[in-house]
Amino acid sequence: MSALSGKDILSTEQISDDELSLILSTAARYEKALTAKMRLDVMTGQILATLFFEPSTRTRLSFEAAMERLGGQVISVADPKTSSAAKGESLADSVRTVAGYADVIVIRHPQQGAAAESARASDVPVINAGDGAGQHPTQALLDIYTIQKEKGRLKGLTVSLVGDLKNGRTVHSLVHLLARFGARMHFVAPPGLEMPPQIVSALREQRVTVTESSDLAAAVRESDVLYVTRIQRERFEDPADYERLKSSYVVDMALVQRAKSGITIMHPLPRVDEIAVGVDSYEGAAYFRQAANGVPIRMALLALITGRK
Amino acid sequence: MSALSGKDILSTEQISDDELSLILSTAARYEKALTAKMRLDVMTGQILATLFFEPSTRTRLSFEAAMERLGGQVISVADPKTSSAAKGESLADSVRTVAGYADVIVIRHPQQGAAAESARASDVPVINAGDGAGQHPTQALLDIYTIQKEKGRLKGLTVSLVGDLKNGRTVHSLVHLLARFGARMHFVAPPGLEMPPQIVSALREQRVTVTESSDLAAAVRESDVLYVTRIQRERFEDPADYERLKSSYVVDMALVQRAKSGITIMHPLPRVDEIAVGVDSYEGAAYFRQAANGVPIRMALLALITGRK
Amino acid sequence: MSALSGKDILSTEQISDDELSLILSTAARYEKALTAKMRLDVMTGQILATLFFEPSTRTRLSFEAAMERLGGQVISVADPKTSSAAKGESLADSVRTVAGYADVIVIRHPQQGAAAESARASDVPVINAGDGAGQHPTQALLDIYTIQKEKGRLKGLTVSLVGDLKNGRTVHSLVHLLARFGARMHFVAPPGLEMPPQIVSALREQRVTVTESSDLAAAVRESDVLYVTRIQRERFEDPADYERLKSSYVVDMALVQRAKSGITIMHPLPRVDEIAVGVDSYEGAAYFRQAANGVPIRMALLALITGRK
Repeated sequence: MSALSGKDILSTEQISDDELSLILSTAARYEKALTAKMRLDVMTGQILATLFFEPSTRTRLSFEAAMERLGGQVISVADPKTSSAAKGESLADSVRTVAGYADVIVIRHPQQGAAAESARASDVPVINAGDGAGQHPTQALLDIYTIQKEKGRLKGLTVSLVGDLKNGRTVHSLVHLLARFGARMHFVAPPGLEMPPQIVSALREQRVTVTESSDLAAAVRESDVLYVTRIQRERFEDPADYERLKSSYVVDMALVQRAKSGITIMHPLPRVDEIAVGVDSYEGAAYFRQAANGVPIRMALLALITGRK
Repeated sequence: MSALSGKDILSTEQISDDELSLILSTAARYEKALTAKMRLDVMTGQILATLFFEPSTRTRLSFEAAMERLGGQVISVADPKTSSAAKGESLADSVRTVAGYADVIVIRHPQQGAAAESARASDVPVINAGDGAGQHPTQALLDIYTIQKEKGRLKGLTVSLVGDLKNGRTVHSLVHLLARFGARMHFVAPPGLEMPPQIVSALREQRVTVTESSDLAAAVRESDVLYVTRIQRERFEDPADYERLKSSYVVDMALVQRAKSGITIMHPLPRVDEIAVGVDSYEGAAYFRQAANGVPIRMALLALITGRK
Repeated sequence: MSALSGKDILSTEQISDDELSLILSTAARYEKALTAKMRLDVMTGQILATLFFEPSTRTRLSFEAAMERLGGQVISVADPKTSSAAKGESLADSVRTVAGYADVIVIRHPQQGAAAESARASDVPVINAGDGAGQHPTQALLDIYTIQKEKGRLKGLTVSLVGDLKNGRTVHSLVHLLARFGARMHFVAPPGLEMPPQIVSALREQRVTVTESSDLAAAVRESDVLYVTRIQRERFEDPADYERLKSSYVVDMALVQRAKSGITIMHPLPRVDEIAVGVDSYEGAAYFRQAANGVPIRMALLALITGRK
């Protein structure tokens, strides 16, 4: 039984270095099994409940595929309107009930703290698949796994993060993990969407080298990895500001050609305009491989916290 | 092959004493298997179709978990808006088609009689998971199963039922089953929401001792089981009546302390305000165990009517 | 490994005579296995993703049942509102991502060409389950399979197709397949909803005998098969035209009694009024058997294109 057996996965902060290392190595083993088309029965007879109080096709399907690849089965609430919450039930009651049906629960909820509240109510382990402005730890884990695979290492890398760094829970979880491996970081954001100062200063206290600018071209010239996030129109009071700014943050082949040779380009998806479709055929364009990596990472988490691995 | 093989489960009235006994003992056996984390393959290769023309997360997930715990698989319509009914298809046609895909069908429908109509159209067994003001037999079965587990017996019990006893299909099905075991019953309802007189007189004809009052405290002093249901605001013409009345029917620890020692508290869930959260830690608070009992009861029904058990 | 291994199923035109013959014989074998209640594990450990950007209960459940009958598992987007498309993601990106989770994809989309676009984006085989005014090849395949089963042969038949022949993608795919077997065809449609002239002339170039009329009674007198489709009120500018016309195209027992003896009646379902319920008990009424045939046909396709069969 592993150190993670019986644990909830609520945030990246709670995951120790040893646990992270176990998750990454377990994921690598499962990925090999997937590639070899091996039939696994690690979770046969076990049930995952996916409770999505906010829709997220990608994350839900990725968790469900992970459970099924392990030989397990799934029960699902994909649409909040069909849930008991619509009848006035508390989140704790909903989760406690579902914990009576399943062996592990994945929850997505629009409110920060909802995953922790669910974990307190549940007799079975809970995984946070995004709680509003809170955390999305499995995305950060698959990002780290992707970087390790693409670059062959995690130590000594320079990573640029570009886009809306203020509101993106994904990048907040990710920089926390990157800091553990001594990454140098460039934060490139439009005015008003910069990385929150408390995160920047926390990183600096950990002796992470951080630079902040709005010059994407300069950042990519010296980066091993470029992590792109979406800038949402709704974040701007004046739509004209959005229109004027967004083109400075579009990643296209012209930019890639001026970047450090072999740069890896990542994106949590869905993308809208922020990476040109022409970049997809660039061999360092890793975002679809990154999405696919969600399956082995989530297989590892499901197996580890249920004590099956 | 059991006596239930090939049968539909439409109402509690249709279930004979022998069949009830078989259902309860089969559920107990499956519950042991669940506790022992045994892998079952009773329904391997079989398909359950859950057709929910009205959303009910709890009931749907409970049936789907039951099927999956038996090794079977599920196809599902969770949202009426995505169903063929939206294209003008009759219920009979929808069910007859799905009967060509599955080995057993569970249906939830807002109209009374819909389950019986479905059963007539279907070549495979149909389970009624609630048809409007009609029946919800699997809820009553899991209630009886819970009482037996919690109290160690079904005979000679005194049961108080409180809340909206007029509109609750669950309590109507339940009192019918309780009567078979000679329970004494207290009905405690606000004015206008009393148990329908024809049900009370039918019970008295069966020599069941029934008392009716609006005094919850008096009822619980001499009850082995308290079964709480929700009082819906919409049932009152004047909202002020609801506000005035509802507090008299809230179960809190003050009430529990004045109740018969060891009283078991049940609720079909979801609850809103009618049981205080403080009661949850009382050891006789059985409502979440009751919800979990839905799985072994539904496993028993699925296996018995498909002739696999 | 079969000739179909790795192929997409986008249209009936792409399917060669040999492939068609392989699909039909594989389906027949699976149907026997289903009848014998055999447990199959052809697709154990494999995942089907059903992506329905437009709801279609029947088609979705039929594919999911097919996958599960083969021992495989399913991940599903049943409701377009919960999909990533709602966040502005392109269809190609959505499909490419899901291709990283699954072994085969079934897609239904309101836009013509969406299935072909999906196939280009996907690393795994894609099946078109209807793309707007485009194709619905698996419906045509199950129709052909049904005719073969009901009549014992495919050659030398006379088939009447009645209803909205202009807009029905199903009948367009079907006549193309029927033509390969030298069927004689009667097209019976209300004014304005006739079979498109280019399809009629293409059939005549293939030396298919085609007659066109609005006289249903005359057509059925000399037909082995009557294929009925729905006439939608929305197709008529003047609702009075619809009301006046629709009764001439209703199939009832009076019509059946004037038809060729043993005529087989088919319908892709859902039906609304176009076949009277009284016809359901006529032994040549094949439409529910036809729907059930969707399962073995789709089992055959899933197994063949993933190279498992």
